[in-house]
Amino acid sequence: MIKAEIYQELINRLIEEQNFKKQPSALYEPIHYVMSQGGKRLRPLLTLLACDLFGGDLQKALYPAMAIEVFHNFTLVHDDIMDKAPLRRGKETVYKKWNSNIAILSGDTMFAMAYQYAIMTDHAVIPDILNVFSQTAIEVCEGQQLDMDFENMDNVSIPDYIEMIRLKTAVLLGASLKIGAITAGADEFSIQKIYDFGIHLGIAFQLKDDLLDLYGEFEKFGKMSGGDILTGKKTYLVLKALELANSAQQTRLKQLYADPALDPQLKISSVREIFNALQIEQHVSKIMEEFFTKSLADLESVNALEASKQAVREYAYLLFNRNH
Amino acid sequence: MIKAEIYQELINRLIEEQNFKKQPSALYEPIHYVMSQGGKRLRPLLTLLACDLFGGDLQKALYPAMAIEVFHNFTLVHDDIMDKAPLRRGKETVYKKWNSNIAILSGDTMFAMAYQYAIMTDHAVIPDILNVFSQTAIEVCEGQQLDMDFENMDNVSIPDYIEMIRLKTAVLLGASLKIGAITAGADEFSIQKIYDFGIHLGIAFQLKDDLLDLYGEFEKFGKMSGGDILTGKKTYLVLKALELANSAQQTRLKQLYADPALDPQLKISSVREIFNALQIEQHVSKIMEEFFTKSLADLESVNALEASKQAVREYAYLLFNRNH
Repeated sequence: MIKAEIYQELINRLIEEQNFKKQPSALYEPIHYVMSQGGKRLRPLLTLLACDLFGGDLQKALYPAMAIEVFHNFTLVHDDIMDKAPLRRGKETVYKKWNSNIAILSGDTMFAMAYQYAIMTDHAVIPDILNVFSQTAIEVCEGQQLDMDFENMDNVSIPDYIEMIRLKTAVLLGASLKIGAITAGADEFSIQKIYDFGIHLGIAFQLKDDLLDLYGEFEKFGKMSGGDILTGKKTYLVLKALELANSAQQTRLKQLYADPALDPQLKISSVREIFNALQIEQHVSKIMEEFFTKSLADLESVNALEASKQAVREYAYLLFNRNH
Repeated sequence: MIKAEIYQELINRLIEEQNFKKQPSALYEPIHYVMSQGGKRLRPLLTLLACDLFGGDLQKALYPAMAIEVFHNFTLVHDDIMDKAPLRRGKETVYKKWNSNIAILSGDTMFAMAYQYAIMTDHAVIPDILNVFSQTAIEVCEGQQLDMDFENMDNVSIPDYIEMIRLKTAVLLGASLKIGAITAGADEFSIQKIYDFGIHLGIAFQLKDDLLDLYGEFEKFGKMSGGDILTGKKTYLVLKALELANSAQQTRLKQLYADPALDPQLKISSVREIFNALQIEQHVSKIMEEFFTKSLADLESVNALEASKQAVREYAYLLFNRNH
């Protein structure tokens, strides 16, 4: 894992070097707050790994990687308003710490800043990078909209859900890798394949998130176990459970989800009991593994040195095997 | 005014040709709603006029012009949430017609779409256009933040106010012109001067807006006369009045602005009386004319044919002489 760690350090140092504390301070303090909270830096790391995979010059990928991280954090700031989320990474969200107007406007500013970073690279690759970047930004918004639409829908299908997480989560991972590959001048086929790798990895990544929300080592995760159940989120777990459940279990599940007065711990344990009876953890793990396997096959097919692929593969395994 | 009218028609037709009605409909319907409401199309028109001014190919400026119009409308959608504005151009705002989550996310999508349009031009000019575009987007956010900051400040100075409207309004006019000039391959000096023209015109334009809010032919304007007084907005008018007022008038003005229970028509007429006594309309008109004169001098100095300058000048006069 040496390479990924070095790159992570590179990104963190670049972020630290930025001056986010400008005027007016009401606008920029939240940006500084969000950008200095750390996090996995997963997406920019993928950009650098993809650049390296195709023998590119990391310097050309560094600011586009930064662009993706700033963009990702912008989406979190706005999502937290829409989801009324009080906490993120164990800290107050911008919307909660300041207010929603500040969160809207700081977010908008971050979006524009992301584009500023995106073009700090070779002029020759800017149009391609910008194309991917804007297309992806739109898809991420579509994913967030679908996620909100699902809240008020009774019959969300599993394919609908996969499409939602593809848009909301996976396309940005795909784009992170694709942009890294573009800066390295990779061939068309490999650019497409590394994007597909990101899509499949991203879907596996989100399914893992869904699983960890209930089955993770939550004390390290900075949030309570079973949060998705309490907020009534239609994750893969509950959709699969509704699909597999007998009529009595279905009714019980729906009752549990629909009852806002129920004691939280009782609600979680009751839902969990049904999930266990239906072997939901095993079912979701299996689907997740299928997407992960697909992603590895995509990676296999790109035109790059085996040693370089290994660094990407190792990082993918690390993501896949995390338990918080 | 033939040229500006033809260009306006060109822009309107381009906007009509776009398919804004995509899926998910909750995301795209508001975008279609906003983009088909018309409006002056002032900013894209300036882009085309600047492209023409420097003998450029209009085709290269068309989509960047579109980008600016979409961006401008995005800022209105988000501003209306922050300002809790129920109406815009005589119609319900997105935030009011749908809700603030929809307005946040549709706005974000429009921002990304704007960037998609911005790069639909010659690859050679994309980096320069993107630079201007992102820098301007950030400044517009800074302007909106200052505008919100001013609401809670007791001592907003007139230079503070001018700086705020420079950021919130004028830089986008400057950028519209600059981007048109860039697509036409204008020289550095002229690009800077046409930008300055936009800045000075934009400040004059906003001062005109402030004036028209109270002294305009409001029945055509789609909003009530004196709205800024009722919302307690710190416009140039009231800032100048506070500067010129004697101590009794100052106290009275502050009382009037601070009293939320006062009858609206009485509030407006009482404030207006003080403004009239202080000749505020004349004072603000004079400052506005100074900025307008500066803008004409900027236009004069660019390296372009006199006949082409005339089309831009005519349009500037049209903006300046509007009475609603």
